[in-house]
Amino acid sequence: MKHPMGIKKTGGHFIQYGNRGMTLESDLSSSNLYYLENDIAVIYKKPTPLSICKVDYPSRMEAVIKEAYFKIPSTTDYNGIYKGKYIDFEAKETKGQSFPLANIHKHQIVHLQRVEKHGGISFLIVRFTKEDQTFLLETKFLTKFLKEETRKSIPLSYFQQYGVSIPSRYNPIVPYLKIVDQIYFGG
Amino acid sequence: MKHPMGIKKTGGHFIQYGNRGMTLESDLSSSNLYYLENDIAVIYKKPTPLSICKVDYPSRMEAVIKEAYFKIPSTTDYNGIYKGKYIDFEAKETKGQSFPLANIHKHQIVHLQRVEKHGGISFLIVRFTKEDQTFLLETKFLTKFLKEETRKSIPLSYFQQYGVSIPSRYNPIVPYLKIVDQIYFGG
Repeated sequence: MKHPMGIKKTGGHFIQYGNRGMTLESDLSSSNLYYLENDIAVIYKKPTPLSICKVDYPSRMEAVIKEAYFKIPSTTDYNGIYKGKYIDFEAKETKGQSFPLANIHKHQIVHLQRVEKHGGISFLIVRFTKEDQTFLLETKFLTKFLKEETRKSIPLSYFQQYGVSIPSRYNPIVPYLKIVDQIYFGG
Repeated sequence: MKHPMGIKKTGGHFIQYGNRGMTLESDLSSSNLYYLENDIAVIYKKPTPLSICKVDYPSRMEAVIKEAYFKIPSTTDYNGIYKGKYIDFEAKETKGQSFPLANIHKHQIVHLQRVEKHGGISFLIVRFTKEDQTFLLETKFLTKFLKEETRKSIPLSYFQQYGVSIPSRYNPIVPYLKIVDQIYFGG
């Protein structure tokens, strides 16, 4: 049950959710806008890669794409600059108690590893929707899991052990750069 | 007239163009692939931003976009990481003797300026197709032109004065990171 003012009643307690959206994507979108407008970071979500097959031009000014297909992305969804450093990450939600590796393409993992190798900051943001917990997991711990484990999904407990929980705030809603500060800038 | 082996006859001279493509975009695409495969930099072109209105699902596996529109991009086309630094640029071709500012959106200019302010490397790559000359122009010189001039296009002479010419090579075809080395890394 969601209160029109954004207050959710859970077990007798009122929790203030602010402008919290329905999805991690919309929460990150508003968080990145907050970071941009407050001149903290310049981070954008990349457009969805499509291969365009057919375009109509009903007028000189407007083009309508009539046939296009989703392409497998070569990179992650989010990148930009923070404190002079290149930052790059993929964000995913999961409903279960673990994060299925099938949710992230192999070349996306390779991309995160390349960024790390080139001196950038790269990580995963994973939200466990039922637990309402969001974690930042550094690429090195993603790599560690892939090397050491044969399981095809990363359990919540792994995120609890190696990731850092991102608290939910009013503004920004997903203050993931606080965690980046802690891990990469000693802040 | 184009020779099948990539050799073009011009005024009695044979010029070796290697795998040189037809457009700056294809040349940059192969250059970025060269940089990626040789582990020099991780730089990608962003997908074209579209707003998707209608999607059909003819089968469980395949989605076909039946209606979509081009969106005005908020950022530039290219970004990535080089020598640990965030790098961001827009690339354009022009047929005339000057580069029309109408070819670049205002928020793309603001984006380049933001990146510069946050300590990243940002610039324009402009190819004058008739002259077959490609220039790298740092954002600070783009800003200088916008401040000091009222003209709505940047003349070739301005690129010759404030930009750096990017030579055409066999591999990579557009070795723009050589110029980045010169300007930003003292190499």
